[in-house]
Amino acid sequence: MKLTRFGAPGQEKPGAFDATGTLRDLSGYVTDIDADLLADLSVLDGIDVSTLPAVDGNPRLGPCVTGTTKFICIGLNYSDHAAETNNPIPSEPVIFMKATSTIVGPNDDVIIPRGSEKTDWEVELGVIIGKPAKYVSEADALDHVAGYCVIDDVSERAFQIEREGQWTKGKSCDTFGPIGPYLVTRDEIPDPQNLTMWCDVNGQRMQNGSTSTMVFGVAHLVSYLSQFMTLLPGDVISTGTPPGVGMGKKPPLYLKPGDVVTLGIEGLGDQRQVFVADT
Amino acid sequence: MKLTRFGAPGQEKPGAFDATGTLRDLSGYVTDIDADLLADLSVLDGIDVSTLPAVDGNPRLGPCVTGTTKFICIGLNYSDHAAETNNPIPSEPVIFMKATSTIVGPNDDVIIPRGSEKTDWEVELGVIIGKPAKYVSEADALDHVAGYCVIDDVSERAFQIEREGQWTKGKSCDTFGPIGPYLVTRDEIPDPQNLTMWCDVNGQRMQNGSTSTMVFGVAHLVSYLSQFMTLLPGDVISTGTPPGVGMGKKPPLYLKPGDVVTLGIEGLGDQRQVFVADT
Repeated sequence: MKLTRFGAPGQEKPGAFDATGTLRDLSGYVTDIDADLLADLSVLDGIDVSTLPAVDGNPRLGPCVTGTTKFICIGLNYSDHAAETNNPIPSEPVIFMKATSTIVGPNDDVIIPRGSEKTDWEVELGVIIGKPAKYVSEADALDHVAGYCVIDDVSERAFQIEREGQWTKGKSCDTFGPIGPYLVTRDEIPDPQNLTMWCDVNGQRMQNGSTSTMVFGVAHLVSYLSQFMTLLPGDVISTGTPPGVGMGKKPPLYLKPGDVVTLGIEGLGDQRQVFVADT
Repeated sequence: MKLTRFGAPGQEKPGAFDATGTLRDLSGYVTDIDADLLADLSVLDGIDVSTLPAVDGNPRLGPCVTGTTKFICIGLNYSDHAAETNNPIPSEPVIFMKATSTIVGPNDDVIIPRGSEKTDWEVELGVIIGKPAKYVSEADALDHVAGYCVIDDVSERAFQIEREGQWTKGKSCDTFGPIGPYLVTRDEIPDPQNLTMWCDVNGQRMQNGSTSTMVFGVAHLVSYLSQFMTLLPGDVISTGTPPGVGMGKKPPLYLKPGDVVTLGIEGLGDQRQVFVADT
């Protein structure tokens, strides 16, 4: 099922897209796409999405999950991306956190923060946790995944790298975490390690990759993270980006107000963000 | 006012300590010590804590705030601590995040994670955000602080430093964030930069410092962080630790099951944790 949230920010209702791409209202069955639902998706069993009420118009889409308590990112998880940023391939996953206050809808404006000169794009496969995960094996790890989505791990490279240690600073600006357009439940993505992915800036292809070239795959990441901390329902893992970010261009290329970033992953839909100045 | 939460994990009620140290029940006035309350503490105006119902017995104290969306830590923020860990004094604040799933009550057991050999203590002044803060000046910054508390920023040094980049990994283990025993509202702490602080392990003094030796003070930190992200009501900033952590001892000294850590800050109360193995 393709689960989504639609409506004004903070007032989203749960929805689902049917096989024809029609947005339908799921609020007769669930209150939201949140931890309670994701911990046990069985409440959705037997629902025929095509019979749900169609949603009128073309409402804004919100982030496809709400109540996320941890937004965990994996650094340098594509070998070619590590190379373009002059970093070695890590021997085990590099973990950092993005503030959950970054999270916005897939097509919301992204605000370039004051003082930014190096705002950059990163298309990433998002993994959304279902059942809580603690000390899970790699073999069992995917049982704890509710589904997948597209994430733009927007990054300010000067804040991230040039402003005294730890990447969080360049990853946590408001609106730097577009998530969606929908959460595709795990049953519809039998192999998360074979999905093409892309990112365009103003219509020009910048990133063109596949989750098949991840250094550490989804099952490994979920198992690995769960050795350090309990992953909770609704937690989001952004699994790293393939080559083609602005920082890796020669010369580097960064976003300016008015730029339009579009990105997508096979089977998970696509996003479109207008980058705007912070007034 | 000294705001607290008491009762079993997940079922805490709001309370307050009166001038004699008696715990009293605040649930007749507020539902919890959470973002809604902290964004506007005026609902507490005129309440005489000494007249509230006394709480029977000696209940567990929970974390003194709930619903925290960001747990932000400042690294190397005491010049002597930077020296003992062989790091230079940072030119601007070093930011990293602790998972909010680390948060526990001030006297709860702390679990040494599987595979840990370098679990360490850090007494820190906690700052709890009241009104949302975005692009605030240093002069206005304290207006956005609801109050202060004691935090033990428990850290696994091998996970933090020896396991591939970014400190989050060694800071985010379950139970690594004891917070409390209470949130002291800002009006009772006129100068957060002049508080003595201490930490003992098994009764032996390990840390002995004062917030007067912070590199970057509370007002600077709130203003600085707000340039990067919106600080939300209930968000917690742990402002760094003075010298005396286990990693800085010669030879280094780390915690083992059965060790008891006690710590406190002038005017903010104290904590006591038994460290236990993860079975």
